[in-house]
Amino acid sequence: MDVLVIGAGGMIGRKLTDRLLAAGEIAGRPIDRLTLADVAAPAVPAGAGLAVESVACDLAAPGEAERLVERRHDLIVHLAAIVSGEAEADFERGYAVNLDGTRMLLEAIRAAGGGWRPRLVYTSSIAVFGPPFPGDGTLPIPDDFHTTPQTSYGTQKAIGELLLDDYSRRGFVDGVGIRLPTICVRPGKPNRAASGFFSGIVREPLAGLEAVLPVDDDVRHWFASPRAAVGFLLHAAALDTGLLGARRTLTMPGVSATVAEEIAALERIAGPKAVALIRREPDPTIRRIVSVWPSAFDARRALDLGFTADADFDAIVRAHVDDERGGRLPF
Amino acid sequence: MDVLVIGAGGMIGRKLTDRLLAAGEIAGRPIDRLTLADVAAPAVPAGAGLAVESVACDLAAPGEAERLVERRHDLIVHLAAIVSGEAEADFERGYAVNLDGTRMLLEAIRAAGGGWRPRLVYTSSIAVFGPPFPGDGTLPIPDDFHTTPQTSYGTQKAIGELLLDDYSRRGFVDGVGIRLPTICVRPGKPNRAASGFFSGIVREPLAGLEAVLPVDDDVRHWFASPRAAVGFLLHAAALDTGLLGARRTLTMPGVSATVAEEIAALERIAGPKAVALIRREPDPTIRRIVSVWPSAFDARRALDLGFTADADFDAIVRAHVDDERGGRLPF
Repeated sequence: MDVLVIGAGGMIGRKLTDRLLAAGEIAGRPIDRLTLADVAAPAVPAGAGLAVESVACDLAAPGEAERLVERRHDLIVHLAAIVSGEAEADFERGYAVNLDGTRMLLEAIRAAGGGWRPRLVYTSSIAVFGPPFPGDGTLPIPDDFHTTPQTSYGTQKAIGELLLDDYSRRGFVDGVGIRLPTICVRPGKPNRAASGFFSGIVREPLAGLEAVLPVDDDVRHWFASPRAAVGFLLHAAALDTGLLGARRTLTMPGVSATVAEEIAALERIAGPKAVALIRREPDPTIRRIVSVWPSAFDARRALDLGFTADADFDAIVRAHVDDERGGRLPF
Repeated sequence: MDVLVIGAGGMIGRKLTDRLLAAGEIAGRPIDRLTLADVAAPAVPAGAGLAVESVACDLAAPGEAERLVERRHDLIVHLAAIVSGEAEADFERGYAVNLDGTRMLLEAIRAAGGGWRPRLVYTSSIAVFGPPFPGDGTLPIPDDFHTTPQTSYGTQKAIGELLLDDYSRRGFVDGVGIRLPTICVRPGKPNRAASGFFSGIVREPLAGLEAVLPVDDDVRHWFASPRAAVGFLLHAAALDTGLLGARRTLTMPGVSATVAEEIAALERIAGPKAVALIRREPDPTIRRIVSVWPSAFDARRALDLGFTADADFDAIVRAHVDDERGGRLPF
């Protein structure tokens, strides 16, 4: 199998790369060659047991997508995106990368022709949904709920889903779209993303550091660990798309948890000293942004197709302790 | 008011033009100037009581959209599109006109800047919906049902809706999208569109001509007369968009009728001799295409906002007799 990962330099891309190199196969099919692409050429992990190529590529630049797919890979995982906050701040760059980049990739595959029809795994997001939600947010969002994003990022992702369906229906690609939950616990340093605190209030205390909580404890949201997200990608890569019908994008299963439930899980795993590192500092701006985010989904289709979420928020915390902190607790 | 109609040369465009010129105003605001645009410069109706300019313009060509909006119109009605069958047959042309053309229009408006934020009425279609429908097609489709088109045309229209929402949210335009039902009775000659028979079995007998019916009598679909469609456009042009919230596109109300109900209405209005001109000639291809079309909607939002449909299918037939045949019946 010849595999291309676009956006391989990002957090999920690096974890996916590690998993692919460790397994050396996808659903029993050996990986012969792995191409890692990003705007800056991604680092090639040391000691890879198979051919790994690293490519610098700006999908939104003319001709770049054609060059990227010259090898006619069997599987393309498209993770490259301008993130939500940046797509909102830089309207043109968001559309260039998230819409035009995705379309140029699809067009490059279509133009290659010759019966080549690769599996394309496209990462969408729950940002395709916007309020009002069912039951004014009290009911889980079903698979047939309309996509009415309230950010430019969500708009661009929803457009990508539509293109993926049409290019798949026309036989140019064999697409699977997955709407990722908010990734938690996101490793690394605190950032200024509005969603950052959901990870921060777990990650920082687990490192013995203080974390700021800007919203109320009853705020509920929809989560998946990085480990679960990589699992979704691998499952999508091997899925029997004959089971999908015309609707190629699936809302991924996740864990619906309140901030209070996050904190309770942290306490069960790392004790009250960890919890004591969370400092409440209400921020009306963040509270307002978060108030329009969805809190729970009924991801029936994805569950029926074998996608599996983290068991609960405790599992999400444990995945972070195992994968990022070598199993060590701070206290 | 300075008004621009893009796609003014089409059937709905011409009827809208006639209505605008006859009224000379929209919701009490006098029209000072009307610009009619299409790929070929539309004919300017004789005796117009206000300034009318006709422009040839291919929205999909670079620079054309900028030139078109130089006047900074108060109202832009965007009707221009490659129709469903052609967008399916010519993949590239469909995307160029229906997606790129719409985006270039939005970009030209955004680029003009300077606080100009015109009302933009965008015509979408029930083609944004695809099966499986609620209750396997037995239940009306609600306003919050997802858009999963199964044609390239429907895909392009659904993408236009997303762009309209985002450009409106960002304050670049004041958009209203309307999803038109299948227009019936469509005037003119029979064409090869799969939906053509819905109009043909009424229009041809009303002209004393034979019509072919390729599907079963129990096939149900969703209709609006050309007169109702023009009414939707005018209502959208004057709508208080503060009532719309973030979701700028509305499914228009319509008449849900079976072929049998169409024929019964024809008989009530034009008698059994008209009905006798309908020749049943089953066509499995058309039957298959039509079987995935929606049959009824619960267009609650649009009704609450004052959009009004034809009263029933009799009204649709009468509108055709009045508007296209000078009130004359064939027998």
